[in-house]
Amino acid sequence: LESKLPEVGTTIFTVMSQLANEHKAINLGQGFPDFNPDPKLLAFVAQAMADGHNQYPPMPGVAPLLNAVAAKVQALYDMAYAPQTEITITSGATEALMATIMAFVKPGDEVIVIAPFYDLYLPAIKLAGGTPVIVPMRPPTINDPSYRMDWQRVRDAIGRKTRLLMLNFPHNPTGLVLNDDDLDTLETIVHGTGIMLLSDEAYEHIIFDGKKHQSLARRKSLAAHSIVISSFGKTYHTTGWKIGYCCAPKAITAEIRKVHQFMVFTVSSPMQHALAHYMQDPEPYLSLSAFYQKKRDRLHAGLLTTRFRPLPSQGTFFLLADYRRISDLPEAEFARWLTVEHGVTVIPVSAFYRDPNHPDSNHQLARFCFAKQDDTLDAAVAKLAAI
Amino acid sequence: LESKLPEVGTTIFTVMSQLANEHKAINLGQGFPDFNPDPKLLAFVAQAMADGHNQYPPMPGVAPLLNAVAAKVQALYDMAYAPQTEITITSGATEALMATIMAFVKPGDEVIVIAPFYDLYLPAIKLAGGTPVIVPMRPPTINDPSYRMDWQRVRDAIGRKTRLLMLNFPHNPTGLVLNDDDLDTLETIVHGTGIMLLSDEAYEHIIFDGKKHQSLARRKSLAAHSIVISSFGKTYHTTGWKIGYCCAPKAITAEIRKVHQFMVFTVSSPMQHALAHYMQDPEPYLSLSAFYQKKRDRLHAGLLTTRFRPLPSQGTFFLLADYRRISDLPEAEFARWLTVEHGVTVIPVSAFYRDPNHPDSNHQLARFCFAKQDDTLDAAVAKLAAI
Ligand SMILES: CSCCC(=O)C(=O)O
Ligand SMILES: CSCCC(=O)C(=O)O
Repeated sequence: LESKLPEVGTTIFTVMSQLANEHKAINLGQGFPDFNPDPKLLAFVAQAMADGHNQYPPMPGVAPLLNAVAAKVQALYDMAYAPQTEITITSGATEALMATIMAFVKPGDEVIVIAPFYDLYLPAIKLAGGTPVIVPMRPPTINDPSYRMDWQRVRDAIGRKTRLLMLNFPHNPTGLVLNDDDLDTLETIVHGTGIMLLSDEAYEHIIFDGKKHQSLARRKSLAAHSIVISSFGKTYHTTGWKIGYCCAPKAITAEIRKVHQFMVFTVSSPMQHALAHYMQDPEPYLSLSAFYQKKRDRLHAGLLTTRFRPLPSQGTFFLLADYRRISDLPEAEFARWLTVEHGVTVIPVSAFYRDPNHPDSNHQLARFCFAKQDDTLDAAVAKLAAI
Repeated sequence: LESKLPEVGTTIFTVMSQLANEHKAINLGQGFPDFNPDPKLLAFVAQAMADGHNQYPPMPGVAPLLNAVAAKVQALYDMAYAPQTEITITSGATEALMATIMAFVKPGDEVIVIAPFYDLYLPAIKLAGGTPVIVPMRPPTINDPSYRMDWQRVRDAIGRKTRLLMLNFPHNPTGLVLNDDDLDTLETIVHGTGIMLLSDEAYEHIIFDGKKHQSLARRKSLAAHSIVISSFGKTYHTTGWKIGYCCAPKAITAEIRKVHQFMVFTVSSPMQHALAHYMQDPEPYLSLSAFYQKKRDRLHAGLLTTRFRPLPSQGTFFLLADYRRISDLPEAEFARWLTVEHGVTVIPVSAFYRDPNHPDSNHQLARFCFAKQDDTLDAAVAKLAAI
């Protein structure tokens, strides 16, 4: 049996969650909350089912949810996407990413990917027949313990064959966010190149220290050739419902929908109706940053009592921590060891690179997810403090 | 903006449902029930959400549902798939089809497709870079008013480049089912060829007149290189939940999961848990054929009072009817006319061919869905009888 993806194994998130379960470790690996969504939202699902919303919804999504997304994006980013032709409800941000890549990347096309990157990017590009061009962020140093975007390298990577530039801010796993200057730079870089921007903004509502999310939807000149993707799962603590969306100009959306309609056809009707109802109140997403900032601060402070050195996180529900005072192991081995020997599960950041075993992909960093109850975070810190 | 699928428009099912809504027509087009699922199943979803099943389930599916599917397939088809390595829960049969094609079809590969065929087949093959080889069924004649499989033509189509043979029985839209002799013939045809069989068995539980569903899972020699796909939506009246599954030997499943994990990652956790619970009782799927046979008979008898001539349907919740006593229009135009002028929506069978406008794709047939309340069917027949 010949494989089209011989280099692909099971995704690191599944591998680490399985290992966590086997060893009954505290799972700060895979990015999901260990608490339930708002009971009101669950009641809306039950209501939608009782109301008969159990058959195929329209292929692009149900009108009330398309309208709710349009209203939110308008309010937050001052951009008017037409609900019926420019917004599509997808099976999570994952499906939006895959459908976009399938819709636009042809054999011979290059796709610029910034490392570290989410593990689906390369296989998706490969399935479409494209070639990834990987641009690394500058890794943390002793003097500047943060990842940094290197826009000059992005500019240098753009060529005649470039089809897409993939962006993901707030950034998983580094927690880096864009500021207004970054958008200026991006505008300059892509001006006149004709490339498209695929912007995974799944963590748009989780951003700290008073910063504002710099959605690509904010700039008309960028939005005109961007696909802006987000996730209801990350925003409403429903990662297991698999529901997200993407916004793009009409002509781009039309191509994405051609793939979407044959990839999944449409997305769960009762969940769509429930979310549309729930979104009438903006409070849940407006308060999300404050909610998670407390958790970030709690984990950060906790890690300072251990031999881990936490790095700053400006957004997402992840933070990185340096473990060089604890171990010389490469990241994947360290993550295994931490689960098996100390009962705490993390994700090796090396999994966000093309070759996880290469020294350039190993900076002795572990990714911690703080989308957990305070007790969970405290229990994990107690275990880590004992190392 | 260059399109990778320039020939693809919006799927016919969406087009006709939209037209039905616009004209307030009775929608016997797109295949979905106009009644709600069992309230017990809906209560199980609410319970699963309250129990905290709202975060990422395992990528291949939750254990109780994988086990329930394995037990059912074992009981009905005497085939033992290993739940953890040979069964995958997918976002409907649609995602299973797309993931399988993406996982196995490479540029240059040929895929045999039997016409009439479901509209996602060709775009999926094209996105994977493959070439469809279309083998038509013999269309109905005056003396034999049924579509018929022509296995000799399938045999002739198999060549060195053939990667997959796509099958779909009970067959949408013709209602044709396989019998034991067909499986014998299929075994002979594919023996030694090394091709894989992609078997869409979404209507496995809807089969009439005492016939038994001939799943490819029944024959070890076929199952060894088959992907057997089914749909919870068609079985449990939950088409809008987008949940199905596929069974295949371990090595094949491993490749499908590589694509699945990056296409959608996983499928709605609360729905998976609810279905697992609900499947403990086999009665709902064991009684489904009898339930739909009454509806088939009702619509068939009703159409006999009109100038349509219904064809036999052995399975699925569709039947075809010949409209040559009513109109000379080609099928797509007839379907529009019927909606706009007479308030009943059907699907043109020509949409299940590569070129819907070609005379060879037009047999003056309309597809009727009878997954509708008796009142709905009666109201439609009343309108049709007036033509
Ligand atoms: C699809 S499982 C991974 C969830 C996630 O986004 C992460 O952990 O980075
Ligand atoms: C995905 S919408 C089409 C539903 C269906 O299977 C059909 O009508 O044939």
